Amino acid sequence: MGMCRDVTVEEVAAMIKSADKVLILSHQKPDGDTLGSGFALLYALQGMGKTVRIECSDGFPPRYRFLYPDFDPSVQPQFEPELIVAVDIADTQLLGGSTDEYKERIDLCIDHHRSNSRYAKHLLLDTIAAGTVEIIYAVLNVMGVEIDRKIATCLYTGLSTDTGCFRYSNVTSASHMLAATLIDKGIDSYSINKLMFETKSVACMELERMVMDTLEYYYDNRFAIIVISDEAVQKTGLPEEEMEGIATIPRQIEGVEASMTLKQKGGDIYRISMRSNERIDSSRVCARLGGGGHARAAGCTLVGTLDEVKAKILAEMKDEF
Amino acid sequence: MGMCRDVTVEEVAAMIKSADKVLILSHQKPDGDTLGSGFALLYALQGMGKTVRIECSDGFPPRYRFLYPDFDPSVQPQFEPELIVAVDIADTQLLGGSTDEYKERIDLCIDHHRSNSRYAKHLLLDTIAAGTVEIIYAVLNVMGVEIDRKIATCLYTGLSTDTGCFRYSNVTSASHMLAATLIDKGIDSYSINKLMFETKSVACMELERMVMDTLEYYYDNRFAIIVISDEAVQKTGLPEEEMEGIATIPRQIEGVEASMTLKQKGGDIYRISMRSNERIDSSRVCARLGGGGHARAAGCTLVGTLDEVKAKILAEMKDEF
Repeated sequence: MGMCRDVTVEEVAAMIKSADKVLILSHQKPDGDTLGSGFALLYALQGMGKTVRIECSDGFPPRYRFLYPDFDPSVQPQFEPELIVAVDIADTQLLGGSTDEYKERIDLCIDHHRSNSRYAKHLLLDTIAAGTVEIIYAVLNVMGVEIDRKIATCLYTGLSTDTGCFRYSNVTSASHMLAATLIDKGIDSYSINKLMFETKSVACMELERMVMDTLEYYYDNRFAIIVISDEAVQKTGLPEEEMEGIATIPRQIEGVEASMTLKQKGGDIYRISMRSNERIDSSRVCARLGGGGHARAAGCTLVGTLDEVKAKILAEMKDEF
Repeated sequence: MGMCRDVTVEEVAAMIKSADKVLILSHQKPDGDTLGSGFALLYALQGMGKTVRIECSDGFPPRYRFLYPDFDPSVQPQFEPELIVAVDIADTQLLGGSTDEYKERIDLCIDHHRSNSRYAKHLLLDTIAAGTVEIIYAVLNVMGVEIDRKIATCLYTGLSTDTGCFRYSNVTSASHMLAATLIDKGIDSYSINKLMFETKSVACMELERMVMDTLEYYYDNRFAIIVISDEAVQKTGLPEEEMEGIATIPRQIEGVEASMTLKQKGGDIYRISMRSNERIDSSRVCARLGGGGHARAAGCTLVGTLDEVKAKILAEMKDEF
């Protein structure tokens, strides 16, 4: 890979303005921030009369259809791009299958991930931004783009999803200022958040029900365990990436100081992920079990029947209480 | 009750400034908005050297301890108030037991509820405000109060809890502007939201588990039912006011167009609450079952065994699909 030069919002605005044929790339397993950033930019450039295309190796999920109600990926313009822009992509490994061909020639990356691997020729990185959409908004502003309802919906969705609806520790006053600006453009933030945060698939609800039945408390309700069995996963057919919410169940319980999610990985293999509060060091516990990680979040893999695995865990946890 | 005069933010600021002994009232079953409003005002007035007391007929819950870490209700100053201010109280019925004695002589009410019954001598009502804290902030601003971290924490908590962390349809750009201002005062919004939205009691988690086991789908997963039985409630000991989250379970499921929560009310009596999307009229269905309500939210009471009650409901719902 060649040199990567850091650029300012103003330089980025000038680069984009001077290009007529622009290709925008979103990362694989697309989320609200990469799609919101990509489509906000796409609509802005279309509005300026440019020829633009957006690509994502995993396609454009129906879940985010409201961001691109009239978009048909099969009838996008084909052209040799003058400028290739990657949005919210920390590393070329996240391009995935069909967009991998561009990895050596990305002109510009706009991102907020600390882990950005500086793969692009030019990089606009702001690690304080809660979502890449905050940076896209700044660029559009300098370019003099009028933020209409459609663009505002894209930007708000990225902002809301990357902050867990303004809950995560990445939220700054700038995030709320942007939300205020976007709401004034007439977006329906209520419906966006309902769809993004309050809608679960039947499969997800079913797996949650099965997993809740495995919830066990130990040591005066200060330690909690849940099990996600292969059988439950097969029965519901829920894809791995939609299980995040389920793994958080035991941590939400008042008084629980440490929790573990035991995810069966075929037969007698269990992948354990541990979370804890200030008092208990997850990395120390998991190190004793042959794993590692951070003080508040760590993991390990244990082999044995479910009862054997639980016995091993409880023996290690005993000293913590 | 006498005359109620509407007053402006400026008039309220002047009224409060000119009083030296102030009594602040919060409503019974206190929530984040009434407590956040009350304590923000208390701290501001204490800072101005005034003699102030806050009262709430249901006391000050440990759940909101972070709003009043050093507060001891038993050592508050006792005095004959020059000004009695009710915050976030729509009607004197919401005063509850111990503060009921003040109901005929409330000088000022600061509120955002459309249903405000105009019981106070002076009323500052802003029904656009997502929380009463938005109005309190405006008053403190006009009074020239410096918003420190402690006051900002109170105001943010009211704002966040009354908007479901910026999710509900009452959120305006002003709500986000205020959040931005408060975050700049150094509050820990992450910890506040974690405590307010991601922490469930063991009892709540247990009842949720039992209720999820009653979840049933009908008509191609377009109709869902849950049952909250007396037995489950008794086993977990969860108070009624903490069941709100549980009642929302069936509505969160993708594809579900209508849902009912069947709450047992002793023996063969079931209180049904129904929710639906645009297509199905809840009030029409519930009217046929002897109840009523609104198009999206309605209710009725049915008598019979659980199986009989379900059969009645399914017979009525059949025509809707």
